[in-house]
Amino acid sequence: MAGQRIRVLGWVKTGREQGKGTFAFLEVNDGSCPANLQVIVDSAMANLGSLVATGASVKVEGLLVAPPVGKKQRIELRLEKVLHVGPVDPAYPIPKTQLSLEVLRDHNHIHLRPRTNMISAIIRIRDALAFATHSFFHENEFRLIHTPIITTSDCEGAGEMFRVTTMVGEDFFGRQAFLTVSGQLQLETCACAVGDVYTFGPSFRAEHSHTSRHLAEFWMVEPEIVDADIQDVMNWAEAYVKYMSQWLIDKCCDDMELMADKGCIDRLRMVASTPFERISYTEAVKILEEAVKGGKKFDNKVEWGIDLASEHERFLTENEFQKPVIVYNYPKGIKAFYMRLNDDSKTVAAMDVLVPKVGELIGGSQREERYEVIKERILEMGLPLKPYEWYLDLRRFGTVKHSGFGLGFEQCCCLRPALTTLETLFPSQDTQEEQICN
Amino acid sequence: MAGQRIRVLGWVKTGREQGKGTFAFLEVNDGSCPANLQVIVDSAMANLGSLVATGASVKVEGLLVAPPVGKKQRIELRLEKVLHVGPVDPAYPIPKTQLSLEVLRDHNHIHLRPRTNMISAIIRIRDALAFATHSFFHENEFRLIHTPIITTSDCEGAGEMFRVTTMVGEDFFGRQAFLTVSGQLQLETCACAVGDVYTFGPSFRAEHSHTSRHLAEFWMVEPEIVDADIQDVMNWAEAYVKYMSQWLIDKCCDDMELMADKGCIDRLRMVASTPFERISYTEAVKILEEAVKGGKKFDNKVEWGIDLASEHERFLTENEFQKPVIVYNYPKGIKAFYMRLNDDSKTVAAMDVLVPKVGELIGGSQREERYEVIKERILEMGLPLKPYEWYLDLRRFGTVKHSGFGLGFEQCCCLRPALTTLETLFPSQDTQEEQICN
Repeated sequence: MAGQRIRVLGWVKTGREQGKGTFAFLEVNDGSCPANLQVIVDSAMANLGSLVATGASVKVEGLLVAPPVGKKQRIELRLEKVLHVGPVDPAYPIPKTQLSLEVLRDHNHIHLRPRTNMISAIIRIRDALAFATHSFFHENEFRLIHTPIITTSDCEGAGEMFRVTTMVGEDFFGRQAFLTVSGQLQLETCACAVGDVYTFGPSFRAEHSHTSRHLAEFWMVEPEIVDADIQDVMNWAEAYVKYMSQWLIDKCCDDMELMADKGCIDRLRMVASTPFERISYTEAVKILEEAVKGGKKFDNKVEWGIDLASEHERFLTENEFQKPVIVYNYPKGIKAFYMRLNDDSKTVAAMDVLVPKVGELIGGSQREERYEVIKERILEMGLPLKPYEWYLDLRRFGTVKHSGFGLGFEQCCCLRPALTTLETLFPSQDTQEEQICN
Repeated sequence: MAGQRIRVLGWVKTGREQGKGTFAFLEVNDGSCPANLQVIVDSAMANLGSLVATGASVKVEGLLVAPPVGKKQRIELRLEKVLHVGPVDPAYPIPKTQLSLEVLRDHNHIHLRPRTNMISAIIRIRDALAFATHSFFHENEFRLIHTPIITTSDCEGAGEMFRVTTMVGEDFFGRQAFLTVSGQLQLETCACAVGDVYTFGPSFRAEHSHTSRHLAEFWMVEPEIVDADIQDVMNWAEAYVKYMSQWLIDKCCDDMELMADKGCIDRLRMVASTPFERISYTEAVKILEEAVKGGKKFDNKVEWGIDLASEHERFLTENEFQKPVIVYNYPKGIKAFYMRLNDDSKTVAAMDVLVPKVGELIGGSQREERYEVIKERILEMGLPLKPYEWYLDLRRFGTVKHSGFGLGFEQCCCLRPALTTLETLFPSQDTQEEQICN
């Protein structure tokens, strides 16, 4: 790019005066990539004192030139005009030295976090993965559906929903209303009419948790595919995860290199290129039981019928297979009523995608499309029939085989190390904005 | 396509037995487009009685053939194999005759709405506009930000927010929490760090209203652009609306033809190809005053300082200019504190995009980037300073010129006639799901 004349607007990361104040070197970042641009300013052009302060904004015009041999920059800007300087108050809280993620979390001025290398990299990675998601589903002719956020039903029956009221407490909707935990049931009504569909929107869980795996507010990607059985949906899930991984490798390697987990790029390459292992739940339990016999200690007991714990999932994907593993055909007792009953009458056509260092990334299933069977399952689980009549209608009126899965988008951003973006980006505002309400 | 062997899964729109029950004609739709596929079934292949019922699902394999000359179909399927039939209960509520939109709204079985021609067309149009939005901003190197849904601040200060609590009523967040009305303030913190950004997510207003212009839950597109003034943001808004219109013309004409408003495609072409008129608020008021002098009656009084009413906006865009109009530089008294004060000290750099038959589609502004001026404005409007200190920090620490706008996505789908998608698609579930909570 040497020889080009450009305009840049960015923020000064570091600056220093040289030659007894006759010129200054600035490291300027505009947020487009992790690398800074080195800018050389002559004191005749601007007040160097304001310019060299970390956090100042500058808009400059100049000529890109190759630096003298031996300097580490690949390119630098020989400045011709200073078009704008936004000075910085001395109280600017972001130092020029590197901040640890822990310090960043505790920081008082967290609304300024996007100015840090780490958070701006996460913004670019998350943006890339979101666009990759829309591209993947559009290339495959899925239709995006915005399923409702405020709803009156609880898809999973877990009861950990947020309630919605107005500020004056009146009953706006004429009945109790909640924030959605999943768009799946509504999505099925669309799939059973227009074919393959997906939703990508916020979900909510009112469970207190301090692990990296649970957030009160997170984004979910949920496709629903017609004429698809459990094998098909495993194929779709694997294709989607590989597509996302390849997208990051192609477009975000310089941002990934900033991440604390130095193995994350190699892991992405492995995920993108390795066929996922597929084992039934029954096989998975056998492997875990063999491991226990061999001396492996787990905190949770291993036997057929248990829900696999994180430690079991990690053992399968990180130790036993050292690659992504899809476990399918789970005991019906630990899974939701809408999953298709297998011919053994003991298991359902559910599947989970497990990824090394990430854990469970995707959960999905073939849906029970047989009216009599799903009715039986609802009763068997002690649920009332009436609230699900509308859902059962899909089975009464031209039923079709269909399957789907859900992916927690913040989990997915953890294909790089455990960083939940909402948590790192925005409690910021919530902390600051506390003052607004009090 | 004649001569190709295909598999199709779809739902029967209409069917009739012919030749004393020896064969049947089916009109099958798979949701990919408004046109049905005509399928001819021999009674040796399947039970014709189940197949000809409206609402049955079928999966068939056959050969696409050109129909005999004189028939209206362009192509039909000569069936070779019936792979699946999902019979339909006689209670199926969607008749083979056309339903009016009003009937559809009152319908008891509204979760089956996506099976109708109208709602499946809206699903495809909305999907197209969502992907067009992501494509536009990505082509222009904007980054997508998921701003928080649950928040503790009220961007507009309108007080019409939904409150969020848990089902057991405890205070999950340690303070009052609400559903967002706009991601703008958080978006500005990102723009002032990584450059041009946008958000596309749900917004909420707890205002009771029965007009087509207000919904409790709707999706908003909000870009925030650095180094942009009011002229730049008008250029961006016009470019975005034109891009969306052209996208619909290119990809959705067959769906648009189903819409009740038969002028909608012509209007889209006009919007895509005509430069938008740009007039100041002061000029707009003069035009309206001239119209009143000429005998035009408005319900709301016209004078400098008023907020333009819908009837005024419609007059400007539909009568006076007969094309989209951008009105800019509004009196500061009727606009938010964060809009940039003009040199006249009477107006602010706000702008609204008005479109014939749609009304106000976009509202935006240049943001006040001067610390002392915005502080003064907050105090002048009688707002407390403290809750906005974090927002003011953007002006204390390396301030830059920036601007943005918001577009209501359901309004935008009204570039075709007034159909608010959430309203037509999903109250369905809410009505049905009422039973789940009671």
